[in-house]
Amino acid sequence: MKGVILRINLNALIVDITHEIEPQNVLEASRVLGESYRYFPDGTIHICVVDPGVGSSRRPVVLHDGKHYFVGPDNGVFSKVITEADQRLRGYHITESRYFLPEVSSTFHGRDVFAPVAAWLSRWVSCGSFGDLISDFTVIPEEEPKKIDGGVEGKITHTDRFGNLITNISADLIEAEKHELSKDKLAVRVEGKDEAFDLYSFYNEAGEQNKTGALINSEGYLEIFFYRGSAQNKLGINVGAKVTLCSNNSFARQGEA
Amino acid sequence: MKGVILRINLNALIVDITHEIEPQNVLEASRVLGESYRYFPDGTIHICVVDPGVGSSRRPVVLHDGKHYFVGPDNGVFSKVITEADQRLRGYHITESRYFLPEVSSTFHGRDVFAPVAAWLSRWVSCGSFGDLISDFTVIPEEEPKKIDGGVEGKITHTDRFGNLITNISADLIEAEKHELSKDKLAVRVEGKDEAFDLYSFYNEAGEQNKTGALINSEGYLEIFFYRGSAQNKLGINVGAKVTLCSNNSFARQGEA
Amino acid sequence: MKGVILRINLNALIVDITHEIEPQNVLEASRVLGESYRYFPDGTIHICVVDPGVGSSRRPVVLHDGKHYFVGPDNGVFSKVITEADQRLRGYHITESRYFLPEVSSTFHGRDVFAPVAAWLSRWVSCGSFGDLISDFTVIPEEEPKKIDGGVEGKITHTDRFGNLITNISADLIEAEKHELSKDKLAVRVEGKDEAFDLYSFYNEAGEQNKTGALINSEGYLEIFFYRGSAQNKLGINVGAKVTLCSNNSFARQGEA
Repeated sequence: MKGVILRINLNALIVDITHEIEPQNVLEASRVLGESYRYFPDGTIHICVVDPGVGSSRRPVVLHDGKHYFVGPDNGVFSKVITEADQRLRGYHITESRYFLPEVSSTFHGRDVFAPVAAWLSRWVSCGSFGDLISDFTVIPEEEPKKIDGGVEGKITHTDRFGNLITNISADLIEAEKHELSKDKLAVRVEGKDEAFDLYSFYNEAGEQNKTGALINSEGYLEIFFYRGSAQNKLGINVGAKVTLCSNNSFARQGEA
Repeated sequence: MKGVILRINLNALIVDITHEIEPQNVLEASRVLGESYRYFPDGTIHICVVDPGVGSSRRPVVLHDGKHYFVGPDNGVFSKVITEADQRLRGYHITESRYFLPEVSSTFHGRDVFAPVAAWLSRWVSCGSFGDLISDFTVIPEEEPKKIDGGVEGKITHTDRFGNLITNISADLIEAEKHELSKDKLAVRVEGKDEAFDLYSFYNEAGEQNKTGALINSEGYLEIFFYRGSAQNKLGINVGAKVTLCSNNSFARQGEA
Repeated sequence: MKGVILRINLNALIVDITHEIEPQNVLEASRVLGESYRYFPDGTIHICVVDPGVGSSRRPVVLHDGKHYFVGPDNGVFSKVITEADQRLRGYHITESRYFLPEVSSTFHGRDVFAPVAAWLSRWVSCGSFGDLISDFTVIPEEEPKKIDGGVEGKITHTDRFGNLITNISADLIEAEKHELSKDKLAVRVEGKDEAFDLYSFYNEAGEQNKTGALINSEGYLEIFFYRGSAQNKLGINVGAKVTLCSNNSFARQGEA
C-alpha cells in the first residue's frame, strides 16, 4: 500500500496509526480511529483497511467531515467518525475505476483501491471525482452502558498490549453517577469477581502494593488495570465481561447480604 | 539502521515493508519481497536483512534490475527478484569498506554494512563503486506443485497474521487444471482432513456460515481461510502440509471408496 | 503522538525505534535507547514513553547532551544516556504548560506533554523555555557482573525476538578475562545447565549442527544463541538466570568433580 501511494505521490507523508487491530474487528477499528483522527493535522487522509467483506458488495467510500478525509470500506469501520461528523459529513461511493490499480484483486482492496484513491486525493483530485454522493452509511451502534439499581452496568470492550481492560463506561457517565449517588468515591466491580476495585486518578496512585484498580483513561473511558502488570492475566477476564460502577457502600452491603 | 541511513542522507524516505518475517526464514523473505517490490516507485532501494549467516563468508551484494535496487546478503533472500529479472540483472559483491560504518560487528551487517551502502546508493554512488560485478548469485529453488492423478498437489508455504494458510499453487495452475478437467468447480483438500473445501472468489462469499474455504489471494496463490477466524487454529494445520486441488467429483468418489 | 507532532511541525521527520519494549520495563528501554541514539544524526530529538508513573509526581524532562535531545519521564529511562553524557548533560524540568495539549490526561503524557514539547523543540524553542534547569536526575544503577573464582558471573538481562539470551557481560570484560586466565578459549555456562557453550565470532560459525553457542553481539555484550532457532525455547531459560564465563578447562574440571 505504501509503495502504491508513493508511486502516485512521492511527496505523500505516510504515518502508521496501528497494525494491531484484532483481525476482522470492525468495531475496535472504529473506536481506535475515532480516538485518534482529530489529533492529526486538518486535511489528513485516513485509510482504514479492516475489511472482512472485501470483494463482496460492501461499498468502498471516501468521507469528508470538513477537515479530515477517510478512505475505506463502508462496513462500520467509520461508525464513530460518521456519528461525530453528523451533518458535516459528505460521503462518496468509490466507483471510478480509472483511479484504481490496473488489476484489482478480490481480496486486497487496501492495495488496489484504497491506497491509489487516497494518493490521488492527496494530489487534489476532488472527492466527487471518485463516484456519487451517498448518505446511507453503515453505522454499527455501540452497546451503551445501562442504569441499574445503585449504579451503572457496562462491559469490557477491548484490551491493550499492557493487559488493561477497557470498558464502554465514559467519564461523563461516571461524573453523573457521582452526582446522583452524592458520593465522591465509587467502586468498580467485575462479573464473577468478589473484589471491588477503587477508582484512582493515575496508575501510580495504586502503586507499591501490586494492586488492581480502575481509572479514567486517556480516551475518557473507565479502565481496569493491575499496577505494573496485566489486569487481563491477573483477573482472567476477557472482552465482553460485565463491569459495574457503584458506590462503595452499596457494594459492601451486597457483599454482606 | 534508520539512524545510520539518515546520518548519510537526511532526505532519504524510509518505508518499512515488514518486520514480521519468521526469524531466519530466507524463503519467506524472498517471497514477500518478490510480491511487494514492483509496487514501489522506480529507483527504490530495497534493503533486506534476513541474515542467519551474518559474519560468515556469505557475500553482501547490491543488485539492480534496471528499475529497482536491492541491498542485502547473497543467501537466497533475493531468489524471486533474481529469477524475475533474469538477463536484466546486474549484481555487485560489496567489498569497499570505506562505505561501511567505521566499526563493523560480526552479527549486525544490517546496521554496519547494508544501511550505509543503501544510503550512499541513494546519494548516487554507482553500484560498481561498492565492489566487483558478479553473476553467480544464490537462488533457492522453490518446490513446485506436482501433477497427480486427477489434480495437482502442492503444500502450505506460510501463514499470515489472520491465520490464513497460503500454498504454492498459483492461479495459472488452477486455471490450467480447470481446463484439463473440463470442470468449472474444483475443490481443495488438505492432508489428514476428511473435508473438501470449495473455491470462492472472495472471503465474504463463504460468509454467514462459519465456513472454511479456499480462494486465490491477492498475490495470486491458492489460500485456505476460515471466514472471520483463523484457518490455522481451526484446522490445526501447519506450514509444510500437503494440499490437493481436484475436481469435486473425483474427491466425492474417493470419499465413497 | 505522531498526529500531535505533525500538527505543530508538519516538516518533522518521525522515526520509530521500537514499540517492542516489555511493558513498564524502564531498564530495557534505557538500554535500547543507550544502544541506538548515537547512530542518529546530531540534533535528533528522542522521545521515550515507558512511563508506569504517569500522572504521579515523577518529573517530565528535556535533556541535551550537546548533540542529542531527549524528552520523557525522569524515571530512569534515560539512565544510560545520563551516565554517558556526564558533565556534558543539561536537563530541564518540563513545567511550562503552554507547550502542552490544552487538556492533559493523567494517563498518557506521551501524547499530551512529550509529543508537543518535542515538536516545539524541533521548531527551535530552546530547552530552557520548558522549565527550570535541574541536575538531580533519576539513574537506575545497572547490576554489574562480578569476579568469581576462575571467571566472571553475570546474568541474562533480556531476550530478543529471535530468542537470543543477552547478558550484562561486556566485550571488555571478556577480553580482560582472556588476558587474566591466559586463555584464548573461554566457555559459557548457564545456571542449572550441565552443558558449557563455546564462544564463537558469528552465528554461522556454530552452523550445520543445531548448536547452542555464545558470541559478542552487535551491542558489545555476551549473547547466548541457538543456531537458526530460539535459545530461550531450547534451553528453557529466562531473564535473570546466572551466566558464568570461565576457561574451558576449569569448567571441565568442575564437570568431572
